[in-house]
Amino acid sequence: MIIVLRPNTTQEQIDHIVEKLIKVGLKPHISKGLERTIIGVIGDERIISTYPLEAIPGVEKVLPILKPYKLASRDFKPEKTTINIDSKVTIGGNTLVVIGGPCSIESEEQILSVAKAIKEAGAHILRGGAFKPRTSPYDFQGLGKEGLEYLALASKETGLPIITEVMDPRKVDLVAQYASIIQIGARNMQNYSLLKEIGNCKKPILLKRGMSATLKDLLMAAEYILSSGNLDVILCERGIRTFEEATRNTLDISAIPVIKELSHLPIIVDPSHAGGKWKWVTPLSKAAIAAGCDGLLIEVHSNPEEAYSDGEQSLTPKNFINLMNEIKPLAKLLGKTI
Amino acid sequence: MIIVLRPNTTQEQIDHIVEKLIKVGLKPHISKGLERTIIGVIGDERIISTYPLEAIPGVEKVLPILKPYKLASRDFKPEKTTINIDSKVTIGGNTLVVIGGPCSIESEEQILSVAKAIKEAGAHILRGGAFKPRTSPYDFQGLGKEGLEYLALASKETGLPIITEVMDPRKVDLVAQYASIIQIGARNMQNYSLLKEIGNCKKPILLKRGMSATLKDLLMAAEYILSSGNLDVILCERGIRTFEEATRNTLDISAIPVIKELSHLPIIVDPSHAGGKWKWVTPLSKAAIAAGCDGLLIEVHSNPEEAYSDGEQSLTPKNFINLMNEIKPLAKLLGKTI
Amino acid sequence: MIIVLRPNTTQEQIDHIVEKLIKVGLKPHISKGLERTIIGVIGDERIISTYPLEAIPGVEKVLPILKPYKLASRDFKPEKTTINIDSKVTIGGNTLVVIGGPCSIESEEQILSVAKAIKEAGAHILRGGAFKPRTSPYDFQGLGKEGLEYLALASKETGLPIITEVMDPRKVDLVAQYASIIQIGARNMQNYSLLKEIGNCKKPILLKRGMSATLKDLLMAAEYILSSGNLDVILCERGIRTFEEATRNTLDISAIPVIKELSHLPIIVDPSHAGGKWKWVTPLSKAAIAAGCDGLLIEVHSNPEEAYSDGEQSLTPKNFINLMNEIKPLAKLLGKTI
Amino acid sequence: MIIVLRPNTTQEQIDHIVEKLIKVGLKPHISKGLERTIIGVIGDERIISTYPLEAIPGVEKVLPILKPYKLASRDFKPEKTTINIDSKVTIGGNTLVVIGGPCSIESEEQILSVAKAIKEAGAHILRGGAFKPRTSPYDFQGLGKEGLEYLALASKETGLPIITEVMDPRKVDLVAQYASIIQIGARNMQNYSLLKEIGNCKKPILLKRGMSATLKDLLMAAEYILSSGNLDVILCERGIRTFEEATRNTLDISAIPVIKELSHLPIIVDPSHAGGKWKWVTPLSKAAIAAGCDGLLIEVHSNPEEAYSDGEQSLTPKNFINLMNEIKPLAKLLGKTI
Repeated sequence: MIIVLRPNTTQEQIDHIVEKLIKVGLKPHISKGLERTIIGVIGDERIISTYPLEAIPGVEKVLPILKPYKLASRDFKPEKTTINIDSKVTIGGNTLVVIGGPCSIESEEQILSVAKAIKEAGAHILRGGAFKPRTSPYDFQGLGKEGLEYLALASKETGLPIITEVMDPRKVDLVAQYASIIQIGARNMQNYSLLKEIGNCKKPILLKRGMSATLKDLLMAAEYILSSGNLDVILCERGIRTFEEATRNTLDISAIPVIKELSHLPIIVDPSHAGGKWKWVTPLSKAAIAAGCDGLLIEVHSNPEEAYSDGEQSLTPKNFINLMNEIKPLAKLLGKTI
Repeated sequence: MIIVLRPNTTQEQIDHIVEKLIKVGLKPHISKGLERTIIGVIGDERIISTYPLEAIPGVEKVLPILKPYKLASRDFKPEKTTINIDSKVTIGGNTLVVIGGPCSIESEEQILSVAKAIKEAGAHILRGGAFKPRTSPYDFQGLGKEGLEYLALASKETGLPIITEVMDPRKVDLVAQYASIIQIGARNMQNYSLLKEIGNCKKPILLKRGMSATLKDLLMAAEYILSSGNLDVILCERGIRTFEEATRNTLDISAIPVIKELSHLPIIVDPSHAGGKWKWVTPLSKAAIAAGCDGLLIEVHSNPEEAYSDGEQSLTPKNFINLMNEIKPLAKLLGKTI
Repeated sequence: MIIVLRPNTTQEQIDHIVEKLIKVGLKPHISKGLERTIIGVIGDERIISTYPLEAIPGVEKVLPILKPYKLASRDFKPEKTTINIDSKVTIGGNTLVVIGGPCSIESEEQILSVAKAIKEAGAHILRGGAFKPRTSPYDFQGLGKEGLEYLALASKETGLPIITEVMDPRKVDLVAQYASIIQIGARNMQNYSLLKEIGNCKKPILLKRGMSATLKDLLMAAEYILSSGNLDVILCERGIRTFEEATRNTLDISAIPVIKELSHLPIIVDPSHAGGKWKWVTPLSKAAIAAGCDGLLIEVHSNPEEAYSDGEQSLTPKNFINLMNEIKPLAKLLGKTI
Repeated sequence: MIIVLRPNTTQEQIDHIVEKLIKVGLKPHISKGLERTIIGVIGDERIISTYPLEAIPGVEKVLPILKPYKLASRDFKPEKTTINIDSKVTIGGNTLVVIGGPCSIESEEQILSVAKAIKEAGAHILRGGAFKPRTSPYDFQGLGKEGLEYLALASKETGLPIITEVMDPRKVDLVAQYASIIQIGARNMQNYSLLKEIGNCKKPILLKRGMSATLKDLLMAAEYILSSGNLDVILCERGIRTFEEATRNTLDISAIPVIKELSHLPIIVDPSHAGGKWKWVTPLSKAAIAAGCDGLLIEVHSNPEEAYSDGEQSLTPKNFINLMNEIKPLAKLLGKTI
């Protein structure tokens, strides 16, 4: 950590800062430059991350040297994390894992028909929401436990592991009984009560990036789960909020190489929420694969124009098959299998 | 609602859309322009807000005419909402309500000393966090129930109503026992499980705008609480996330006149989190008052450089007195009292 | 165009608006809904795009139906535009065009050595800046005419067409004497004096998207050039400004499918400026190709750590060869040649 | 400057960096921490601001200690800059300077009538655009020289100094013959050819912040003008581009206290372009004054609904008088006169 002092800091102020640093076990090193005096701090700066050093008179700014996350970083764990899902598929390895399914579970028939269609097309995991975070209180809020039952049935019929979202810490146990992977949605990325609860759970977690979360924020949210004892965290880029209005969100494709450099955790991409229109799902999926992602999360619905949610961005089973046909040779070229 | 069709839409596609609209009780009106055919929809378009009309082949875009929120809008309730707090102060009326206190409750002494100081300076309500949403899992997470006890004590000693945050739906009952106003933090603005739970509660709610929430999103989140039966919602502008790095967030000062035009709900401003530095709290507070806000939420700490959180942006009691001295004549000039 | 009226608009106000519309030759159509009255406008709404309809009392909002650009749209010209460069390569067709070279031309030796290296690796066009838009007035501003001479020499030696930036309308003639393609930089995307000047020029134009330009803004900037008579415009996505700090800019990969849907103009991608670090150039290039771009603009420098500008994001010739080796089979798989 | 090295940097790499620093006259100081080795650099780091240090193998990141601008900073010139306009009014002193007038000069009558109205209401300076940067090539582009003549006439009649925009370096001399202050628009904030040309001019410059410019970028743009020899630069906050759609731009009110801390240059606010609707001009103006700005730039038009540009956000003369009546006591309370 580097503490940059204001031009006219007094010796008394410097002594005061130095004293504070020594008290917590850090070793300050003062260096007077032409225009600024700085204090270099040796030791684990994280022990003073809660200290409001910039509140001290004379301090102009504080520059951290270390990253604020630890367990999520490549420094801590250089080799890539791989996560085994129900002994059926591994995320983070050589398989480009494709997760497909509807935004909301609407009925037994609906989820079953989609499950069979994606299974046949070669998808690895089935998605479906039973608890839905909707912007409007007047919109469909999900079938709840009933939806989970239908999802379980579809899993049993097809053999596909299932992923579903939990929004409420009180529902974590319930959802964990059904899900192979538990999803934390973008709006809950910094819902710390939920993150802690999920951290105590033994299931793999898919953590979606918040709409205005930096990649550092995303890794800090993962750190909450990791530090609670659950090491099986899959990150998911799903677009960020920017000024651009042509797409629902702006897919931050660079997140893939950046996360792979900073962290050992696998990263998958949700092109459906990013673009917001089904026509853009294929080009965005291909871009994500080419950039090196570990998997895709795709919305599929048998009849998108009747979907209770996200119909605009859902692929029909036929379009999903087309997508799979386009991405298989691409994955192969890049050394992965689907 | 206006449905704009693509240039080469077939008659069959148009019939299909028209049929759908009629089925849900809406009245379509087709209008052929030079370059585009449009379908005007008469009736309450909110009943098809869940319908993915853009998923229908031939549809280029859908332009809503009505606002998606209802109870929160001025159309629904033209007169301003006023909210009485413990029969001691009214938010939304002629009083410019000042809420002060530390980010975190750290000890009995700490909260008591701040409470007395702000009371003496003329503040109306005491704030203090017992449950803290912290970006890092390694940072101080709040004293929990113990903190609420200290806060209650400080309220009793000073007569100040209290506001404190709840992050977990399981803690709503507990927090409601102590709080005069319950705060929903920016990170939980779209935590719908929490919003619904809080909607069943009889206490006034302070709803902070999410970091990347549009004003429409903020009003939709308020709609969740209002539609659950709790009509006492106070909105809070606390800065949004932009590319600017000089400040912690970008205070969206325009939110004040815009919200006053769109909604009847009172709006207060948190200049501490917006700017992120205590030196900017006074100019931002004055700007907020001049723009017409109903109150201020200010972080105050007896010794900011030792604060467990947000020390950089906290005023000392002395600086808080200075702030109060500066804003009193300003409020008076604008026809308000403090 | 749809004009939405406020709930309590008077008949007099409606008449006033209708009269205005009729006066300019448009046909208004009034429709009274349950909560709002709207006026549908039939005719070319672009003739009143300059009219401040929202300034008229009683008007709540104006919803355009048509796109504000015309010549740049797919509606106007359904088939893709292809642009022939010096009879050597065509942009917008089946070739994935690779443009390489240094940010700044620094010396004859430097540009020559890079030109030879990229030529050998299979690049189609040489880039190099003689006039440099630098954030700081104290940074290297480019060699000017001298730089153009070196660039021409490199072109002659290698046979590669050249692209270089113009920043000043007074330099358009000079730059046009040397360049095969003239580049308009991101900071000048809305420099209308320059756009008009360039519109009179007979050379193909590469128009880079501004840092905070929506795709609509980008197409409007292209419309300036097209409407001045120059139809050879190549668009370039190079990252937009967002809150994310890990990358220099946020590459908006969705721009590729969106632009291909809205416009007939070719679109290439600059992964060097987007990511800001050379290590991310390869994954971003591959993503751009997979998303369907028409070409790449890559910074290459023989000794990046001694580059006068953008060294951090420049590939060495060796890394450029590696990139070419990685993207050739990818382009082939997607039906393109390099 | 602090150079942070990657965990596994070799001694050879460190020696290479040290050598480079010594070669340009800087003094490196190596410090080995627990997790990272850093190199502190003593000397004027600006001499290596062009050096791509992050391109050197082993370097993780470079943290600048000093600000990149010099002449614009408070460190360089602690006392506030005041700028005298035609010996009639001083910007940056105790007067809250009000600039009013239409977006575009449309005719002799139009500019004269507005000039007289604002003069009577107490405005200090007349604005009016003769060269207009319009998003669409099909919109009114300004009257050019003819407009300047009308503006000069209005100035002569009323005695008001005039401000008008220049967009083209070839027009600087022409505009300088008429203008008391030359305006650089938001879209041209980083038009360096124009900034340099204007730097050679003897007239005061009003530099508007770009839509996506950080405050650091704004000060760097000012530095271009200052370093070219023109020291009379007035900064103007006019809103930045964010995801919020309710307002045309997001007024960054914090820019006022931040700029006053970082720089000696005066800063004024344009509430018309920020909000984009005339109803919000008054609350935003009051907020700007309360935050400490040095002046306001307000769009006024005799008949906004017939304005050639920006009618939605223009005040009528009557509304302008109301605004003046509201802000005069506010300015007085804050120790300023209008």
